[in-house]
Amino acid sequence: LAAEPSSSPEPVAGERFLAEIREQPDAIRSMLAYDREFALVARTMHERGASLVRMVGHGSSDNAASYGVYAFGLLPRWTALRDSITLTVYFRRGPDLSGSTVVALSQSGQTPDVVDYVERARAAGAFTVAITNDPSSELASAAEAMLPLAAGEEQAVAATKTYVNQLAALGLLAAHAAGRGTEFGEHLRATADRLAPLIDELKTRIPALALPFAFVGRMFVIGRGPEFATAREIALKLLETCRIAAEPLTSTDLVHGPIAALDSQFPVWTIASDDETLPGVLDAAERARAAGGTLVASGTAAHRVEGASCVVPVPSPTLSLCSPLLSVAPGQLFAWALARAKGLDPDRPNGLTKITLAR
Amino acid sequence: LAAEPSSSPEPVAGERFLAEIREQPDAIRSMLAYDREFALVARTMHERGASLVRMVGHGSSDNAASYGVYAFGLLPRWTALRDSITLTVYFRRGPDLSGSTVVALSQSGQTPDVVDYVERARAAGAFTVAITNDPSSELASAAEAMLPLAAGEEQAVAATKTYVNQLAALGLLAAHAAGRGTEFGEHLRATADRLAPLIDELKTRIPALALPFAFVGRMFVIGRGPEFATAREIALKLLETCRIAAEPLTSTDLVHGPIAALDSQFPVWTIASDDETLPGVLDAAERARAAGGTLVASGTAAHRVEGASCVVPVPSPTLSLCSPLLSVAPGQLFAWALARAKGLDPDRPNGLTKITLAR
Repeated sequence: LAAEPSSSPEPVAGERFLAEIREQPDAIRSMLAYDREFALVARTMHERGASLVRMVGHGSSDNAASYGVYAFGLLPRWTALRDSITLTVYFRRGPDLSGSTVVALSQSGQTPDVVDYVERARAAGAFTVAITNDPSSELASAAEAMLPLAAGEEQAVAATKTYVNQLAALGLLAAHAAGRGTEFGEHLRATADRLAPLIDELKTRIPALALPFAFVGRMFVIGRGPEFATAREIALKLLETCRIAAEPLTSTDLVHGPIAALDSQFPVWTIASDDETLPGVLDAAERARAAGGTLVASGTAAHRVEGASCVVPVPSPTLSLCSPLLSVAPGQLFAWALARAKGLDPDRPNGLTKITLAR
Repeated sequence: LAAEPSSSPEPVAGERFLAEIREQPDAIRSMLAYDREFALVARTMHERGASLVRMVGHGSSDNAASYGVYAFGLLPRWTALRDSITLTVYFRRGPDLSGSTVVALSQSGQTPDVVDYVERARAAGAFTVAITNDPSSELASAAEAMLPLAAGEEQAVAATKTYVNQLAALGLLAAHAAGRGTEFGEHLRATADRLAPLIDELKTRIPALALPFAFVGRMFVIGRGPEFATAREIALKLLETCRIAAEPLTSTDLVHGPIAALDSQFPVWTIASDDETLPGVLDAAERARAAGGTLVASGTAAHRVEGASCVVPVPSPTLSLCSPLLSVAPGQLFAWALARAKGLDPDRPNGLTKITLAR
């Protein structure tokens, strides 16, 4: 008798998204194989005197750029900004880009206006660097230098491992610019080692924590300093996969107005990390609780947030600036679990495709 | 017989907020009396070679700074950024601020970390400029130069006339830096002349338009380029006074993820202005409609947004860069009307005070 032809198994909702979350520690390690390329780009930034860093990207790439502001600000103490693509590409009369370094972030390397910006910046004399997961992409060709994310193919629409590797790449580049690249690489390796067991633990623990949020329609996610990037990225995951109106705010933004909208059905996810921003973050969380908001607390100092109804701490990294690589994981796994609890497939967000070709 | 002692009349909900919205055209005209001070500050920026502009502020002041990015980018073609207060004030080891101009925005002039940032920047050799509604404030003393908003006392917690004057101030300063201050002042005067009848018309027309939104809990507000400031400010008014989870996004942000959360109960307020950003904004609005979102359209090109269920156009200004001074008015009056329709008092947002003393 011939064997029954085996039909291909039904895909499980969120299986790609989860698989890529779990690949993150290895993705960080893979990127570190390109450490020499990062050192070379940093050396060129010095040689060209191009210490004003203009970062461009959309979605998760732009969220990672929020981390770059702090990585460059704290390590070489350079000014890094999320530059306006609109001025240069659409108005075609923005500021003079010569004398700066452009760091263009795109997972696919195909984002049209990011490629366009890089072409114009390069023609104007900027030192242009592409950080992309596709070394053969249009963006990689358009830029003078290319740094690979080396995260392996990312299939889920909602980015995870390429986001974490964008953080790692910006941190490593900033560290090399400060002459601390080798040390930072070791911190990244240690962070990857802590991320692997954290993801395993969260995968088991988070579904029960996420379930009570199945009927939540809106949320604020607050973080400050290097963790503002985490707040933006967690909010984006919740929007994309769980259809929650999640708005990222700095802890200061929250108390300058939006706090007026809070009630018990409007939770505030607080990312509390053990750095110089902690007093301000704890103060904002306390005000949110007093205003009737329900608190979710994550980060290395999650236990310091008083009265949180859901606490998801992450381990401390060996360098505080590496915290955002760990603190995004609770948000990724919360989004994975909550989407499934709501009957949504986190692998297939409504109306999105992996590459967005928008103006 | 003695006359009955008259008791002081009951305050009408939103009466201060409305009064200050109506004072906006006069507030712009009052600020223009200080044109020479703006010209002098611009000249000093040139003399000091301080063409990198670092703007700092919170809430509506930070929203106005988003406009400053475009005013400085398009007029003198200088790079202006919303700088990180956290790096300099909390980490105390941010980038070198010498050689830049710091523009500190605060209605009250009392925001603690903005004052702290200015003190550190001034000590580091930056040219520091305070733009404030209180010329005797701590911020005004801390900065090397002071430009008054001259909007008259603002009593409502939710800022209106000081926000519009912050736009006018940033535009006028940028125009003087480009040698076009006199011309820009005339455009501002013409804008004030168009704003007055617009406000009168909206006050009558908007309450009926706002009513169907009484049960809306979440909204996106999209704008791009100079109008991203408007998107941020309208969203903040809706959060503060109507308790709607309104998130501002650029039109590009919207299509890079958040669009997945839309349904018919999740309206997208689209600010469509007749400038280089219009094709991208119309494309994003069309995608939002296709995803099932309900559209509100405002701006000078509101009629170009297809399928909008609520259209609130504003007149074209004599210079496109002045559009944001007009296009914020529909959002202010929508917030005023909707708060009242929901039984809220826009003069008394929940848990807010006029001056926020937060870390």
